Amino acid sequence: MAPSHLSIDLNSDLGESFGAWTLGDDEAIMPSVSSASIACGFHAGDPTVIRRTLGLAKRHGVAVGAHPSYPDLAGFGRRDMALAPEEVTDVVMYQVAVLAGMAAAEGLRLRHVKPHGALYNRAARDESTAAAIARAVALIDRDLALFGLAGSMLLDAGRREGLRVASEAFADRGYEPDGRLRARHLPGALVTDADQVVARVMGLLEDRSIAAVDGSRLRLDADTICVHGDTPGAAELARALRAGLEARGVRIAPPHGK
Amino acid sequence: MAPSHLSIDLNSDLGESFGAWTLGDDEAIMPSVSSASIACGFHAGDPTVIRRTLGLAKRHGVAVGAHPSYPDLAGFGRRDMALAPEEVTDVVMYQVAVLAGMAAAEGLRLRHVKPHGALYNRAARDESTAAAIARAVALIDRDLALFGLAGSMLLDAGRREGLRVASEAFADRGYEPDGRLRARHLPGALVTDADQVVARVMGLLEDRSIAAVDGSRLRLDADTICVHGDTPGAAELARALRAGLEARGVRIAPPHGK
Amino acid sequence: MAPSHLSIDLNSDLGESFGAWTLGDDEAIMPSVSSASIACGFHAGDPTVIRRTLGLAKRHGVAVGAHPSYPDLAGFGRRDMALAPEEVTDVVMYQVAVLAGMAAAEGLRLRHVKPHGALYNRAARDESTAAAIARAVALIDRDLALFGLAGSMLLDAGRREGLRVASEAFADRGYEPDGRLRARHLPGALVTDADQVVARVMGLLEDRSIAAVDGSRLRLDADTICVHGDTPGAAELARALRAGLEARGVRIAPPHGK
Amino acid sequence: MAPSHLSIDLNSDLGESFGAWTLGDDEAIMPSVSSASIACGFHAGDPTVIRRTLGLAKRHGVAVGAHPSYPDLAGFGRRDMALAPEEVTDVVMYQVAVLAGMAAAEGLRLRHVKPHGALYNRAARDESTAAAIARAVALIDRDLALFGLAGSMLLDAGRREGLRVASEAFADRGYEPDGRLRARHLPGALVTDADQVVARVMGLLEDRSIAAVDGSRLRLDADTICVHGDTPGAAELARALRAGLEARGVRIAPPHGK
Repeated sequence: MAPSHLSIDLNSDLGESFGAWTLGDDEAIMPSVSSASIACGFHAGDPTVIRRTLGLAKRHGVAVGAHPSYPDLAGFGRRDMALAPEEVTDVVMYQVAVLAGMAAAEGLRLRHVKPHGALYNRAARDESTAAAIARAVALIDRDLALFGLAGSMLLDAGRREGLRVASEAFADRGYEPDGRLRARHLPGALVTDADQVVARVMGLLEDRSIAAVDGSRLRLDADTICVHGDTPGAAELARALRAGLEARGVRIAPPHGK
Repeated sequence: MAPSHLSIDLNSDLGESFGAWTLGDDEAIMPSVSSASIACGFHAGDPTVIRRTLGLAKRHGVAVGAHPSYPDLAGFGRRDMALAPEEVTDVVMYQVAVLAGMAAAEGLRLRHVKPHGALYNRAARDESTAAAIARAVALIDRDLALFGLAGSMLLDAGRREGLRVASEAFADRGYEPDGRLRARHLPGALVTDADQVVARVMGLLEDRSIAAVDGSRLRLDADTICVHGDTPGAAELARALRAGLEARGVRIAPPHGK
Repeated sequence: MAPSHLSIDLNSDLGESFGAWTLGDDEAIMPSVSSASIACGFHAGDPTVIRRTLGLAKRHGVAVGAHPSYPDLAGFGRRDMALAPEEVTDVVMYQVAVLAGMAAAEGLRLRHVKPHGALYNRAARDESTAAAIARAVALIDRDLALFGLAGSMLLDAGRREGLRVASEAFADRGYEPDGRLRARHLPGALVTDADQVVARVMGLLEDRSIAAVDGSRLRLDADTICVHGDTPGAAELARALRAGLEARGVRIAPPHGK
Repeated sequence: MAPSHLSIDLNSDLGESFGAWTLGDDEAIMPSVSSASIACGFHAGDPTVIRRTLGLAKRHGVAVGAHPSYPDLAGFGRRDMALAPEEVTDVVMYQVAVLAGMAAAEGLRLRHVKPHGALYNRAARDESTAAAIARAVALIDRDLALFGLAGSMLLDAGRREGLRVASEAFADRGYEPDGRLRARHLPGALVTDADQVVARVMGLLEDRSIAAVDGSRLRLDADTICVHGDTPGAAELARALRAGLEARGVRIAPPHGK
């Protein structure tokens, strides 16, 4: 049985609707997570969607974060863009400022920043982008936590800025033996069975490791588990994951306490 | 001679460049004003321009404000748009949050909000738009001052929200006897002679009135004078206006003290 | 039984997805209509969505048109905007040119233009906007038909430019006795029963009239019937409407022949 | 003396203003060039600017082309973006369709396509991007010429599609011995003396070569010379270049005849 001190954050990327377009089922996902990373208007989200998502998070007692992106609405922030590091700092500052100010207006305190899509991926492996993001976060508020891929340069950059960081793992995604996420078109890329996902998170909590697609054990620190909100069955998987973890004595909470 | 307690704010709309495009000569105008209303990215301005403009204001000890607009980059915020009042509140909150957060990162405190272009004009005469803006400002920070056209519904709405307000007058524009600004294509629409502009501001300070185009005196409260930054000769006029006022013992300062 | 020469166009607004966001079920609607009005990127649609929608229309032998809008992605083109008439002409030319060129690349000839949302509504009652749109269409291609609300100024403007026009009616919407569409929040605003919709179209074809919400008969010319694509049950209603009309001997075809 | 059959195209990137912002002095440059590559709204340009620029080109008898870009208004199309090849084809088709249709409305025939900024640079060295652009151009109109960097993959891709191509050289930029343009921050990157620029173009015409920064001769085919429009002194340099070439018997004309 899991010791009672086991605790993990479940985070989801929310508020990714825009204008007349809806994406994901935020109402269904929100009750299952402890942290919400909210789009800031650069890849998704608009002022009205942001306010609505903050209100929803507040109702469910979910910690809120900013989910900044490259400025690419048409590409949903998934296309890598060659911004200069200073531009990265500026666009991240802008987006974090929006969420911090609008959260405060809702009576909430912004808790974390998690870069989105192509910016997240580049920040994992490109030191200057990672440093530019960490600097932006520190300039806006040194109390913000920085979420990044477990083992990524973004976490190193955050630590160097004196920020608290949270290592993110993907319990419903297959890992290669070298730690990369398995490409989505390959077999084993997705884990859709809730029991298996629960077991994988328990492994992360108890052994700080996860099974790679070849069966080997991969060492992996995880402070927060990404829960996808935009795929069919996402809400059910999230509910089952939370229930399964709580049944094993795990507390679901933001990474650095309330 | 003017009594030493005379004081007026000179404000200018700045940070209205975007990406590769430059508008106005902020470096030349900034030293002459006491308040800068900075574009937030919806009609002009981008994250890099905003940071640069904040830095420039800081260097010159100029009070900073947000200059929110309808979302209309292609139209520079000059085209009226039929947003619902709730949408107005949301887009203004978003823009004020950006400036408040980025100003704080620069070590500055955001001091005021002045709506831009078509939003400013509609807020002068449309009660629900005025109320929506005032509400947005109050939700972000009740210490922010709200700048609006002298005698406008926006100022009434600000007062109802408990905000400090500042009445804006245009010393280099002609006024009709009924208080409206004279249309730009008519004779007398623009006052370009610096001495005359100084004299008009002195009239506002000493008599709370200004000469209309027909020679009649128009009663007008003015807490802040708009200094245009994007016309040829704007910087020279601003410098002459400030020097002329200071020579008459007028203190140039933000409307509600430092 | 209806005489065999009865013919009507069924049109739907399609291609209104954008980037990662999907709107409507174009695959399900396309087989039921004879004309598709395709979003051009200003309120919805992007280059990839446009190509996909053109390909889908081609597969189903559906006539294609451009569906230009005010430039307002965040508001889905539903918010009225005060563009100068010359700006209206320019933005409509731009959008029609896109669709004409991309349709030709697909081996299709663009057949019509139907303004979207707030632009459609303003063009119904504002003569200068109507004229600006008609002029744009004529400048791009005098063979394009102009679709507008039955009885609207847009159709008059189109006729004055020498364009063929098509009067649009809404068989699934209630009409006030004065010819306006009944506001959506009032009872009788929507007709969701397929048999009733079929009967209303037959009335338009045989008597050139439709029942208003108070039971009176309203005279209404209709060359094309709008089939909504973005509401639940839309595809089923479209299928039933087409089948019902064809069962009554009505030919479903674009307004001015192939 | 140069034989009378010598002919070269002078092209400039024009129509790069946007909304309230002006860039470059198109009125001053247009009389000096034989081809204008006109921004399409993705990195610069808007419907009104496009029409105005087409009208200006018509007045001066200048051949018009489309100047498509990555969708990046904030970055002026200068930031590399990781679009899939199909996305590149779609965005280029969209932009070329706009210019082709709006040019035809002006009574002009679109003559060429020259990619802009980061898209131009990537197309020079990345085969799949080059092929995607060439395919887009061919899909819109096989009679369009494709302009690309001399020696680039874009020209190869154009030839493979059966398009006429034009090799572009930069007479006012220094070349490295290996054919790359000298980086702007290094000495010798810019050639600002008009006589020297004329001499360099004459070398391209008579010897198909240009002097590299180390003095070695570099073999370079050139069908069109880029004339910059957005730098101080650009218009004067353009005038002097055209006058100098014409004085040496060179005909200034689009690359593939009228």
